[in-house]
Amino acid sequence: MALFGGIEAGGTKFVCAVGTGPDDVRAVTRFPTTTPAETIGRVIEFFRSQPEPMTAIGIGAFGPTDPDPASPTYGTITSTPKPGWQNTPLRKLVADALGVPVAFDTDVNAAALGEYTWGAARGIDTFIYLTVGTGIGGGAMVEGRMLHGLVHPEMGHIRVPHDWAVDPFPGFCPYHGDCLEGLAAGPALERRWGTRAETLPPDHPAWPLEAEYLAQALVSYILILSPKRIVIGGGVMHQPALFPLVRTRVKELLAGYVQSPAILEGIDTYIVPPALGDRAGVLGAIALAQGQR
Amino acid sequence: MALFGGIEAGGTKFVCAVGTGPDDVRAVTRFPTTTPAETIGRVIEFFRSQPEPMTAIGIGAFGPTDPDPASPTYGTITSTPKPGWQNTPLRKLVADALGVPVAFDTDVNAAALGEYTWGAARGIDTFIYLTVGTGIGGGAMVEGRMLHGLVHPEMGHIRVPHDWAVDPFPGFCPYHGDCLEGLAAGPALERRWGTRAETLPPDHPAWPLEAEYLAQALVSYILILSPKRIVIGGGVMHQPALFPLVRTRVKELLAGYVQSPAILEGIDTYIVPPALGDRAGVLGAIALAQGQR
Ligand SMILES: Nc1ncnc2c1ncn2[C@@H]1O[C@H](COP(=O)(O)OP(=O)(O)O)[C@@H](O)[C@H]1O
Ligand SMILES: Nc1ncnc2c1ncn2[C@@H]1O[C@H](COP(=O)(O)OP(=O)(O)O)[C@@H](O)[C@H]1O
Ligand SMILES: [Zn+2]
Ligand SMILES: [Zn+2]
Repeated sequence: MALFGGIEAGGTKFVCAVGTGPDDVRAVTRFPTTTPAETIGRVIEFFRSQPEPMTAIGIGAFGPTDPDPASPTYGTITSTPKPGWQNTPLRKLVADALGVPVAFDTDVNAAALGEYTWGAARGIDTFIYLTVGTGIGGGAMVEGRMLHGLVHPEMGHIRVPHDWAVDPFPGFCPYHGDCLEGLAAGPALERRWGTRAETLPPDHPAWPLEAEYLAQALVSYILILSPKRIVIGGGVMHQPALFPLVRTRVKELLAGYVQSPAILEGIDTYIVPPALGDRAGVLGAIALAQGQR
Repeated sequence: MALFGGIEAGGTKFVCAVGTGPDDVRAVTRFPTTTPAETIGRVIEFFRSQPEPMTAIGIGAFGPTDPDPASPTYGTITSTPKPGWQNTPLRKLVADALGVPVAFDTDVNAAALGEYTWGAARGIDTFIYLTVGTGIGGGAMVEGRMLHGLVHPEMGHIRVPHDWAVDPFPGFCPYHGDCLEGLAAGPALERRWGTRAETLPPDHPAWPLEAEYLAQALVSYILILSPKRIVIGGGVMHQPALFPLVRTRVKELLAGYVQSPAILEGIDTYIVPPALGDRAGVLGAIALAQGQR
């Protein structure tokens, strides 16, 4: 039976797995992202050490990347600020070393595909997968196809209303200051409140403010992309108070406008956590390998 | 040879045409949108009076609508504020009266399809068509398919940064006040400056402000949907000063972030007017009839 490899290539850590799906993961490894040579070396070593050969490998990678299969630089990490990683032909290096077909997409598109194949977006042809962690990023499937477009979405960097009187924190995005990521990713919470996000209690004022920013962004996504469901993963969403606050605020902001029962009556199944949890990324990479799309 | 009918069903006027494409339009009529009975009566009369029968008809309609072919209310104008038109089964009424297949989509999706088939988006599988007129609305094709999703996009109603010190006009959107449409559609210009938009000269301060709002919205569209081109039609875009101002501002706002040559070097072919001009809507309806999708 065909066996697949998945690589979740993150800016802070890599996760590699071998298997055929969530109930059949035969091996997993994770290690920090250091230099390209060292990191990719460990990836190759892991897959070479497996008892059985892989039919194909999938990579979901941090970016910006070139995820266009028709491009000469398909599968390259392009203009990332991460030192040493600019213009790293990640896909090519893995494919050449292991001699198998390697599919490539953004980390969030891979996670979206994982949730579509086995998780919270099964059977839903138009949806968004968002991660709120060290950064904020989103992937989307539209009418059954992964959205790539010109480059790939960068929906974590949209502007959201920022009331400086309420929140004087200037945002930490090196490109935009107070874009969504700048105001609402994990490091924004840490700098604004002086403590890591996981230490903030559920009744801390950090959470209604966080929910406001996320809800404002979700409303823009809903008005522009009309998703049938929104799956939100990432470390910051582990705060249990957050989902209910975000759902309530999205409904308020949309009320009377997008009159869909999915939102007005079904918000609890409209904005949901990933069913695959923190494995969405690496399992999505396996799904990518299986689909070879 | 197969002959097609197209209906651009707008909130202020209807345009009906018979033909096979932009170079073969055999008959056209336009009339104001009054009651559903009277207006749909004129549509039926027009097609019945044609010398040759139609193979199929397409409708691009104002909304909100139900454009889902699998829904029991496919082709219905749903919760529109336009008096008398709530829950009008437009597609069904036309199909029953004329006895031909009738395809239905939003007005902006139809216009987008027209531009894709014969106009400024030929061969481009992921793009946005935006109209800036009495209202602001957008349609999109993603990876070769018209985007519908949960309902349909309402991208004219996203929020954009509104500096009240610079622009004290509160916006006129009945739902949101100062959303994009509330600040930048034709009626916003008329109320803010006290004169119809077409009378404002090219060097009037109205235009840099208008360009700022449109550019902020386009940047959100680009970050979320990653379109390969943006086509902008509608009455307000007839002001010749506007396209250059919008292009420059989009480039400034994105600079250093979305590093695509299409934007950095090719902005003049990235943000463009419709090649079909004001006929995009009705020709798009004919394309819809031809595709039956
Ligand atoms: N239980 C928690 N509650 C709130 N924030 C958390 C929690 N756990 C982790 N975080 C925050 O999530 C961020 C890391 O997100 P994560 O998705 O795990 O990593 P990455 O985005 O680097 O892949 C950090 O900023 C951390 O403070
Ligand atoms: N040459 C022009 N310059 C600027 N604005 C214009 C011009 N012509 C029409 N408009 C404005 O465009 C709006 C009508 O847009 P249009 O696309 O023609 O109609 P609709 O959106 O109702 O289909 C009006 O608000 C009008 O003031
Ligand atoms: Zn940013
Ligand atoms: Zn509005």
